Amino acid sequence: MPEFRIHPRILGDCHRLGRFPDCHLLLHRNAALPWFILVPETSVLDLLDLDPGRRERLLAECAQVSTYIKADLGLPKVNFAAIGNLVPQLHLHVVGRAPGDACWPAPVWGHLLPGPEYRQEEVGEIVAGLVRHCALTPALRG
Amino acid sequence: MPEFRIHPRILGDCHRLGRFPDCHLLLHRNAALPWFILVPETSVLDLLDLDPGRRERLLAECAQVSTYIKADLGLPKVNFAAIGNLVPQLHLHVVGRAPGDACWPAPVWGHLLPGPEYRQEEVGEIVAGLVRHCALTPALRG
Repeated sequence: MPEFRIHPRILGDCHRLGRFPDCHLLLHRNAALPWFILVPETSVLDLLDLDPGRRERLLAECAQVSTYIKADLGLPKVNFAAIGNLVPQLHLHVVGRAPGDACWPAPVWGHLLPGPEYRQEEVGEIVAGLVRHCALTPALRG
Repeated sequence: MPEFRIHPRILGDCHRLGRFPDCHLLLHRNAALPWFILVPETSVLDLLDLDPGRRERLLAECAQVSTYIKADLGLPKVNFAAIGNLVPQLHLHVVGRAPGDACWPAPVWGHLLPGPEYRQEEVGEIVAGLVRHCALTPALRG
């Protein structure tokens, strides 16, 4: 089997945080709000076409990220989506939201304006939180 | 327990098609593209906070609608989301998409312009298709 590669557009937009058993976890570079992207290693393009068992394992990992967003980052709301009109590779969005945030109440897709970048230490703190809460295996960092 | 009521804004935006075992099925009135909304009877507001068993039953019903969109309506792509920033009641979007459609490649939320309405017969055809493909229990129609 060819080596799995995350789509270059996702890699360009995101920090690579690490792995869960069923997917790669990335963080969108726009630090205006916590926007996580989960990429499972599959050639299936739409979430609802996935095998149900695999879909539920993947959703369970999304739910762990959601719990981290609510419990650790203290945000009240999580938006979830699988879109893939621009980047066909299956990827799931788990986005922490709060009234008054950078594009509330609009969804982030096509609405969130360019925002600040994370500092390296901030990315490290998020990885550490996810290792504690969600058993993330961190990516090797240069 | 108080009777479950679908949020009035969802009812105002949609045709009520019927029921699956785990949710109500509605169709957005904008006929530019097939945009289904599924509403489970729950007080949980975010999909990723649902009990995993219930979440998977609900996703299985979304997958039936997705199969109908692809197999019966012939669209190549399905967008899926649980957002709820404007209408807090949990509701899931299952949207048939194709390159060149009314707002491709943007997601529909906040991007789809007002479009044509379905004719009554078109809604009836969609209900009939969903009864055949997905064991939908149709809503009583006046």
